Amino acid sequence: MYVIVVYDVDVKRVGKVMKFLRTYLNWIQNSVFEGELTEGQFYKMKNGLSKIIKGKEDSVIIFRMPDDKFVEKTIMGIEKNPTDNLI
Amino acid sequence: MYVIVVYDVDVKRVGKVMKFLRTYLNWIQNSVFEGELTEGQFYKMKNGLSKIIKGKEDSVIIFRMPDDKFVEKTIMGIEKNPTDNLI
Repeated sequence: MYVIVVYDVDVKRVGKVMKFLRTYLNWIQNSVFEGELTEGQFYKMKNGLSKIIKGKEDSVIIFRMPDDKFVEKTIMGIEKNPTDNLI
Repeated sequence: MYVIVVYDVDVKRVGKVMKFLRTYLNWIQNSVFEGELTEGQFYKMKNGLSKIIKGKEDSVIIFRMPDDKFVEKTIMGIEKNPTDNLI
């Protein structure tokens, strides 16, 4: 599966969220990660995130697509983190 | 088609980008928009964005999926802009 994670969390937790997500996905822009995950990795990532964020203050949105062939990605302007092009 | 737009633009242009994108998509989180677009709307949006941002300073990433049925959305924590649930 292909996953995009966007987050808006308290500045106290941004570093921790970023460090955690880096172990699963690629950082592509401020507060945005993307990448391929297995079912197991997906649930472990979600579970780990739920332990870091504060549900009443922070916001995380996870978009999950069955496969990256369903996702066309267009970059306008600068590419903040040129990963080898997954798509 | 289903579209997600994430952007990281100079503070001078954030308001303009936001105002522009609001005419096409739903704001769901800081610097994140989503929604359904026709092919025509998609190209008009891309064209309009290219006139607002500065290619050498700003970063916009557009994810396009053929249909929202390929997108599963999970919200953790607070939902910043509870739109009627598109998915």
